[in-house]
Amino acid sequence: MSNFDLIKELALQEQTKIVMLVMDGLGGLPLTAGGKTELETAHTPHLDRLAQEGICGLSIPIARGITPGSGPAHLALFGYDPLRYEIGRGVLEAVGIGFELGPEDVAARGNFCTIDQNGLITDRRAGRIPTEECAKLCELLQTIQLPDVQVFVRPVKEHRFVLVLRGKGLTDGIADTDPQQVGLSPLPAVADRPEAQPTADLFNTWLARAREVLADHHPANMATLRGIAKTPALPQMGEVFKLRCGAIATYPMYRGVAKLVGMELLPTGDTVASEFDTLREHFSNYDFFYLHVKKTDSYGEDGNFDAKVHMIEEVDALIPRLMELRPDVVAVTGDHSTPALLRSHSWHPVPTLVWSAHAGADAATAFSETECARGALGHFPATELMPVLMANALRLAKFGA
Amino acid sequence: MSNFDLIKELALQEQTKIVMLVMDGLGGLPLTAGGKTELETAHTPHLDRLAQEGICGLSIPIARGITPGSGPAHLALFGYDPLRYEIGRGVLEAVGIGFELGPEDVAARGNFCTIDQNGLITDRRAGRIPTEECAKLCELLQTIQLPDVQVFVRPVKEHRFVLVLRGKGLTDGIADTDPQQVGLSPLPAVADRPEAQPTADLFNTWLARAREVLADHHPANMATLRGIAKTPALPQMGEVFKLRCGAIATYPMYRGVAKLVGMELLPTGDTVASEFDTLREHFSNYDFFYLHVKKTDSYGEDGNFDAKVHMIEEVDALIPRLMELRPDVVAVTGDHSTPALLRSHSWHPVPTLVWSAHAGADAATAFSETECARGALGHFPATELMPVLMANALRLAKFGA
Repeated sequence: MSNFDLIKELALQEQTKIVMLVMDGLGGLPLTAGGKTELETAHTPHLDRLAQEGICGLSIPIARGITPGSGPAHLALFGYDPLRYEIGRGVLEAVGIGFELGPEDVAARGNFCTIDQNGLITDRRAGRIPTEECAKLCELLQTIQLPDVQVFVRPVKEHRFVLVLRGKGLTDGIADTDPQQVGLSPLPAVADRPEAQPTADLFNTWLARAREVLADHHPANMATLRGIAKTPALPQMGEVFKLRCGAIATYPMYRGVAKLVGMELLPTGDTVASEFDTLREHFSNYDFFYLHVKKTDSYGEDGNFDAKVHMIEEVDALIPRLMELRPDVVAVTGDHSTPALLRSHSWHPVPTLVWSAHAGADAATAFSETECARGALGHFPATELMPVLMANALRLAKFGA
Repeated sequence: MSNFDLIKELALQEQTKIVMLVMDGLGGLPLTAGGKTELETAHTPHLDRLAQEGICGLSIPIARGITPGSGPAHLALFGYDPLRYEIGRGVLEAVGIGFELGPEDVAARGNFCTIDQNGLITDRRAGRIPTEECAKLCELLQTIQLPDVQVFVRPVKEHRFVLVLRGKGLTDGIADTDPQQVGLSPLPAVADRPEAQPTADLFNTWLARAREVLADHHPANMATLRGIAKTPALPQMGEVFKLRCGAIATYPMYRGVAKLVGMELLPTGDTVASEFDTLREHFSNYDFFYLHVKKTDSYGEDGNFDAKVHMIEEVDALIPRLMELRPDVVAVTGDHSTPALLRSHSWHPVPTLVWSAHAGADAATAFSETECARGALGHFPATELMPVLMANALRLAKFGA
């Protein structure tokens, strides 16, 4: 019996409310040895108070040393074993631009690339064409029709686009057509099992037509497909946790992942303040809120230490608005770390606090990497955060007698 | 290979002695944010000294966020995966009143209930009749005879009783007959596999006779059965750990669980002091002692913070008696937390200390939740306590060369 089954068995319907505030890429690193991280540099009196009153720890998104993408990192926060429930790249890319995937759709992540007169790839990213150019080329590709299926081509960013096929009996199980190095031809779409052959044939037909359509559009004169996937059948949070879940996020990808796990998407504005307004507005209608702050991660990726610090302070200043709603349980965490020093996602465990009237006692006196390392939550798998929140919300029955 | 197999392979026969002192429901919570827990409030110079000399940590009985019952929590302390080795409720209830279950017996937890003239349940607990009334009705039910099997009916408390069938070829795999809500008839005993049908038939015959016997005893005019189970075939501690194990516990349920895992039950008195006397008396005859203190949990369940504090202090005062026996390894822990604040078992990890001449070094300077959070044992699954104690007793061979 997995822990997930256990939770489903023990989950109770109660009136308590849980708020999970996710500051994307929250964890950081000092710029110099012995210095302070972004979170430790930020002035965060309200978060510090929650840390004092509640308990702290460091969450491990996937496993020690593993740097997660946002998809698996969020699945883990929502309680899903990210190694068991994988979301294909095609699906993640589609979901990331807000494309509404149906259960039978097959989605691929597309790359425009450059091929020479012999058909060999000279640039796998077509010189990273501007996004506007990408959008025009996608309109051209949208003219390609296939028998008995609907075809959707949507631009993402620079050389990246999404291709979705919609029809009866389509499958995944088709290898990438990107050979991963220059000097080789794009690969055909190869089925890795006999049932996938008809769908592979459709992708190959589409690729042949794309080559014709794009022929005169150097450097984007060909395309490759990767991560061909269907929507995974994820258990729905409402059923597993007996929670009515509302998601507050501004970026499509996070809204997409929230939708895949069964949350309702709440309309919100572009600023963090407007996300907190949305929380207040809908507070009586849901049991669980996922509130996502994107820019902590974006500034980390930019290597902008100070901007990440200010973003954390902006969130801290909004904490009183959250607390005046009188939630029963509050978690503040990140999906992963994004140290400005590294300009990328990282493997570092993520500072996490859990506040409730009976969270427990520990020595953590502020919300920081260092304080979290000695908190009562210890180092814990991110997948166990939801059970801890459920317990604090008094929404789990006792196991055994 | 499970950790259990590994231990069995590596266990050595040695002369060292281990004492596991379990203060039931030991872990607690501050009554107000930032305050002290029961254990932190208690004056415990002797336990603090053991914590200083040994190492500390927080044990997780089942999984983070999961509140355990005493059965699975104790199995975990004894090294058994509580999700793998489940003790059915019928067995736990029988064991809990000191009924000696044979390996072929089938035990059910019974509830007296009230039915109306149409046979529909109006009260699933028969108004919680007094325990004396329950005992009288059990004597009446004891007159019911079944072909080829012995029948035992024993009172537990209020509306609860135990029904045990003893005979050849009896099985478990029979669903509860309690429909879990009023306004419905009691269910028949339904076999969930064909082999269980004969046993289900016996339970149904018994239930039909019980209805006749109880007809005039409103509000307890019918009974339902739950958790129909046989004794689980648990590996025996003596074989797994190569330890002669003695159990010192005053409450039947803990004695019962200890017996199920193969410990010998040592006769003892009602007070904690007499339990420590029993330990001294038998100290030369066993390698491992399980000493159980019940009242820390009872006072927690009562919401009596001060009484729990005093109980911890009472145990602390007895620690010198334990140490003068010169045990090689001492563990002090709880099976789970029972914060007076919550008046119930809880999910919080349990303060644990391990003392031996070579336990290790850590920063914990007292025995408390906060100090344990920074101890060398870290946060650990309760199932790993036994291997740690075995190691400290130098009773585990090296794994591999």
